[in-house]
Amino acid sequence: MKKPFKLAVKAVILDGEDRCLLIRRSQHCRHFTGQWEWPGGKPDPGEDFTTALVREVREETSLEVDITGLAGATTFEMSALHVVLLCMEARVIAGEVHLSEEHDDFAWVGLEDVAQREILEPMKPVLKNLLERKDLP
Amino acid sequence: MKKPFKLAVKAVILDGEDRCLLIRRSQHCRHFTGQWEWPGGKPDPGEDFTTALVREVREETSLEVDITGLAGATTFEMSALHVVLLCMEARVIAGEVHLSEEHDDFAWVGLEDVAQREILEPMKPVLKNLLERKDLP
Repeated sequence: MKKPFKLAVKAVILDGEDRCLLIRRSQHCRHFTGQWEWPGGKPDPGEDFTTALVREVREETSLEVDITGLAGATTFEMSALHVVLLCMEARVIAGEVHLSEEHDDFAWVGLEDVAQREILEPMKPVLKNLLERKDLP
Repeated sequence: MKKPFKLAVKAVILDGEDRCLLIRRSQHCRHFTGQWEWPGGKPDPGEDFTTALVREVREETSLEVDITGLAGATTFEMSALHVVLLCMEARVIAGEVHLSEEHDDFAWVGLEDVAQREILEPMKPVLKNLLERKDLP
């Protein structure tokens, strides 16, 4: 049985000074507890990827965001499927950070410092691409 | 009014020797007549991106393809929207090339030779990414 490719989306929410919002996976997450990530998730069946991303960011952080551009894309394999991870740049238009129980901490981190944290593996090529494009170290 | 981001998908159909299928836009296309492109298009409302891609390839080339990986992603701006172009690698599982009226020629072209043709501008960063990854000149 061939594994299907499914889309997932994440938001690199930037604050205007090249800092992005990272949130830390809590013990309520089945996998990767303690790792930092950008907010996001999977579109519901039939849901547009931008609608899904704005919804997931709202659910995970209480923030309302506008999507402003493409940060990058990567792919990784899970037991039953391939995930195509589409990372979009975004900015906050309203709200303050309130986390759901899926996350237990958040931080605004300079893009050049993100790799010093324990982050999800698939974020790394997207981060590299972002740093190159923004000409950051 | 903010321009929405919409997804479009293209298939880099590879033949096992790093040649990909290019098709040439015919006079039935409103824009970019004569330019070469990878097959693809936009998902219908609610349509999964892989379903859309397999359908568009079938409509444009009569080929049945399997999606095998991610080639790359890029974004470009149109008058009313931003397009996020997701390019997937694919391989032929059945059929022979028969073009629709939207295209008037096709060619299997080595990835390192694609840039010598007149291709759609947004394909260029994805092609560059592909050549780097496959370590081609």
